[in-house]
Amino acid sequence: MPEYEAPLRDMRYVYHELGLTERLAECPDFAETTPDLVDAILEEAAKFAREVLAPLNQRGDESGCVFHDGSVRTPDGFKEAYASFIAAGWGTLTADPEFGGQGLPGTVALMTEEMFSASNMAFAMYPGLTQGAYRALAAHGSEQLKARFLAKLTSGEWAGTMCLTEPQCGTDLGLVRTRAEPQTDGTYRITGSKIFISSGDHDLTENIVHLVLARLPDAPSGIRGISLFLVPKRWVEDDETLGDPNGVVCTAVEHKMGIRASATCALGFDSSRGYLVGKPHRGMAAMFTMMNAARLGVGVQGLALAEAAYQGAVTYARERLQGRALKGPAHPELPADPIVVHPDVRRMLLTMRALTEGARALGLWVSTAHDLAGHHPDPRVREEADDLVQLLTPVIKAGFTEIGFEVANLGVQVLGGHGYIRDNGMEQIVRDARITQIYEGTNGVQALDLVGRKLPAHMGRYLRAFFHPLREFLDEQRERPEMRELALPLAKAFGRLQRATVRIAEEGLNDPDEAAAAATDYLNLFGQVALGYMWARMASRALVLLQDDDGGVYRAKIDTARFYMQRVLPRSSASFAALMAGASPIMDFNEGSF
Amino acid sequence: MPEYEAPLRDMRYVYHELGLTERLAECPDFAETTPDLVDAILEEAAKFAREVLAPLNQRGDESGCVFHDGSVRTPDGFKEAYASFIAAGWGTLTADPEFGGQGLPGTVALMTEEMFSASNMAFAMYPGLTQGAYRALAAHGSEQLKARFLAKLTSGEWAGTMCLTEPQCGTDLGLVRTRAEPQTDGTYRITGSKIFISSGDHDLTENIVHLVLARLPDAPSGIRGISLFLVPKRWVEDDETLGDPNGVVCTAVEHKMGIRASATCALGFDSSRGYLVGKPHRGMAAMFTMMNAARLGVGVQGLALAEAAYQGAVTYARERLQGRALKGPAHPELPADPIVVHPDVRRMLLTMRALTEGARALGLWVSTAHDLAGHHPDPRVREEADDLVQLLTPVIKAGFTEIGFEVANLGVQVLGGHGYIRDNGMEQIVRDARITQIYEGTNGVQALDLVGRKLPAHMGRYLRAFFHPLREFLDEQRERPEMRELALPLAKAFGRLQRATVRIAEEGLNDPDEAAAAATDYLNLFGQVALGYMWARMASRALVLLQDDDGGVYRAKIDTARFYMQRVLPRSSASFAALMAGASPIMDFNEGSF
Repeated sequence: MPEYEAPLRDMRYVYHELGLTERLAECPDFAETTPDLVDAILEEAAKFAREVLAPLNQRGDESGCVFHDGSVRTPDGFKEAYASFIAAGWGTLTADPEFGGQGLPGTVALMTEEMFSASNMAFAMYPGLTQGAYRALAAHGSEQLKARFLAKLTSGEWAGTMCLTEPQCGTDLGLVRTRAEPQTDGTYRITGSKIFISSGDHDLTENIVHLVLARLPDAPSGIRGISLFLVPKRWVEDDETLGDPNGVVCTAVEHKMGIRASATCALGFDSSRGYLVGKPHRGMAAMFTMMNAARLGVGVQGLALAEAAYQGAVTYARERLQGRALKGPAHPELPADPIVVHPDVRRMLLTMRALTEGARALGLWVSTAHDLAGHHPDPRVREEADDLVQLLTPVIKAGFTEIGFEVANLGVQVLGGHGYIRDNGMEQIVRDARITQIYEGTNGVQALDLVGRKLPAHMGRYLRAFFHPLREFLDEQRERPEMRELALPLAKAFGRLQRATVRIAEEGLNDPDEAAAAATDYLNLFGQVALGYMWARMASRALVLLQDDDGGVYRAKIDTARFYMQRVLPRSSASFAALMAGASPIMDFNEGSF
Repeated sequence: MPEYEAPLRDMRYVYHELGLTERLAECPDFAETTPDLVDAILEEAAKFAREVLAPLNQRGDESGCVFHDGSVRTPDGFKEAYASFIAAGWGTLTADPEFGGQGLPGTVALMTEEMFSASNMAFAMYPGLTQGAYRALAAHGSEQLKARFLAKLTSGEWAGTMCLTEPQCGTDLGLVRTRAEPQTDGTYRITGSKIFISSGDHDLTENIVHLVLARLPDAPSGIRGISLFLVPKRWVEDDETLGDPNGVVCTAVEHKMGIRASATCALGFDSSRGYLVGKPHRGMAAMFTMMNAARLGVGVQGLALAEAAYQGAVTYARERLQGRALKGPAHPELPADPIVVHPDVRRMLLTMRALTEGARALGLWVSTAHDLAGHHPDPRVREEADDLVQLLTPVIKAGFTEIGFEVANLGVQVLGGHGYIRDNGMEQIVRDARITQIYEGTNGVQALDLVGRKLPAHMGRYLRAFFHPLREFLDEQRERPEMRELALPLAKAFGRLQRATVRIAEEGLNDPDEAAAAATDYLNLFGQVALGYMWARMASRALVLLQDDDGGVYRAKIDTARFYMQRVLPRSSASFAALMAGASPIMDFNEGSF
């Protein structure tokens, strides 16, 4: 398995030196989040990732979760690691202090989540789902429900799930069939079958809090008839002791391509007692309010796996001796040169690096906006920040997970045959990464969200939150000759993005197929430009700091930015041309001929 | 598992109707290869793939090969399937009639290989390796060796392997350490360790013929000191009976990401008796003569898996009901529309289709050239055909395997969460496909072969074999207005390819890093243009045949060609721009900063 060391230096660069996160200091809620505190948290998280999580990653993949007699056993070591995880309070970082949380910015937690997913994505799924349940409940639960469940979810003493999918419905939740019958005591009886439930059952906690989409008897059909319910695995009595099992039965654990240590369950609910969360028939709205955080989280999984793959590939490329540098031996004393001397290997490593670090910066920028939207005292700042989050969440979810998969595969390619062998751990990263392009809304669905919901919202207002700062930045840089070779390609790609936006807005009005047919290429183009913006900002700042370079960190930023602009950003021309061709090459094809 | 039906109609279109293969009729060796015979072979192969191989594919992946007590057991059913395979003579198609072969064109066998790999790639590896050994021996073995071994390899009674890789050497075979000591009787004693040996040990045949790279005692160091030896697993006595085991020990079977039913072995040779094949120290030359066929074969694996994934995705997209067509329900009588109505799903299916069918046509064109190079009576035709093979072999190996992996992943994406589950068989295609980008020379090595060997060879002569027919074709099409929307984008992409070629030729002369840094993008660009050429030819012919359309086959060709030109070929602009940026963004980066 590749050794994993959290990229603390790069995280510090982006968090402290780049200026993307500085407005967090304007939020009174984060008054105690000092730079020293952030560094201390990152150091501790790095240690936890390295010492506790990473050693379990490959073993967990090999053994997988075991389903026996209706319950799920996690791989050896997971129980102990989970106990350490909650003892150290890693699940409490961003939760409300009222329920035992530390009230830290999500931006800090984003970095720890990157480390945990990079060292053991399957493990990190368990607390990740719990936090999703926490957020849904915190946003929509009654005071009574919050009082009973939030503290246990915050501490991680109890785990959570999100039960959406059913055999006949994935993307289209309007097809949900699970039923909820109101009882005279104000609770409900839930009956139905759910599939693909991450952390649906396991042995890490004594109770599991399922958030379940179901239909009330009087529900309108389709998506406007779905309500959200809280259904505990074991009933919680009024004195807060655990009661009987609540009719939630795990009927199967899926055998998957990857994240094999994460229990993906089929669950049967048989007249299970539950509480309504939020208003009747408003379950989808409740889902939507927590979706941005969840999708950012999946994006971070992509980033995390990209980092893990990059580290493994660099280590291998330095050690593996094969062939000679084309201009003559770089290490004549060795039987061959390390493969890092070869241009095509360097091309792969730099592609991996440029995508990974670019994603990290973009993730921290949008996560900061997410924090500002929730905590800044000025409502105008909150609104502007939320606009950016709304706009870029699908770009991050889809873009980063495409990056995770691409970079993981480049990692395998750098290792060659050794990357294909299970022992070396690289191919596991590919298999783990593959799910991130699918769950929490497939990447195609993200693209439709971007063009169908985010672009038209408020007459295109969200776009300003990205276009304005980028345009301002380009205007500022115009005066700096040393930025020219970076700013020009970025400006060109930005021009493509603007033209594509206009086209989609115009054509999409007349014909919804036009917008949908452009969606994926448009999202890709958006992501390419957004990473370009981050790289230009990183280089722009590094040029200022360069005179006092810290071990070559700033030089490397500038050089990677140049690589990105010249060798990666050209992809934007392909995305642009493809989407500008319009829907007819896609829609004219005769369905029967497929 | 997706059902697999061999794409016989498309194979017939490319083989019989498109005109790519018609010069095979000029070869007296193929006088008996009538169209009816070809069709009969394809029908039978399709049946064998469907009925014998496909049912074993998923089971083989699940159980994998078992290593026990020094020998390898293939998955249940493989032995029986292999016996049927040799009984039906599937291994004998192209072999020399002198040794029991049928002497058919490789082009016909290419289509059967596609079927066998599509239905069960791991199985097809076993006879595939045997054919590789057959070819090396047929080209370089003494008459005595040929007499003793070729008939058994042809029939498949004995299997073959290629033993190249060692722990310290993969791409750089100059580092081979395995030694060969000459004996007084003219044989050699081979000692050393080999890894990643496909079909290195198994229970399908009573003997295995290993072709082994090793060094003679007086060998110069490096790549010019490697010789090729034939080392049977069990010695073959002069009366052709099997003698004792020959000191070839399987020490491990690798646990791999995919092709788990193919035994990838570590082999130890302990003073094993063998024969020299070809001249001393000329082992690499012997490898090279068979490399084109082997690399075409790997390309076909990529094509095969792409076809399998496409079929599975189409079936799912027709059956899975989810959401509604954007312009209103397409099937109001159903609870939701099949997902094939959604533009983004159609985009994925058409991308899969365009890449797969384009690759099939290109594969058959180059395979025809391979046949002409070996069998045409006119030496000028042979040379021109061989030029095309030399040039396009790396494009096919790397390009088709990239296609295989991309299409397999699109297949998973169309299935969503169901694609990530092992039961559905789609994720297996991704895992199986991943190796094809690595073995038989990584795709990076293919790119270096293209720019470093194939472009400069004979002052650029090989290029003419591709550029001339493409230019002629474009000139011809200029008169046809109905071809304009296809010919224009192709001409533009071809222009990029020509400019990129000039740049590499010029810059590469001064600085080898320039050519190497451009290699992968150049190979991609080449492949994009080559597929574009195939699509333009397919559409051009389909336009002629359209008045008598066969169930929409010709219309689908024209529409897919349009999709390719407008939505896939734009990738060429990205490949072009990236490579034109030159080596400096890659080579200037400080090695210590990775």
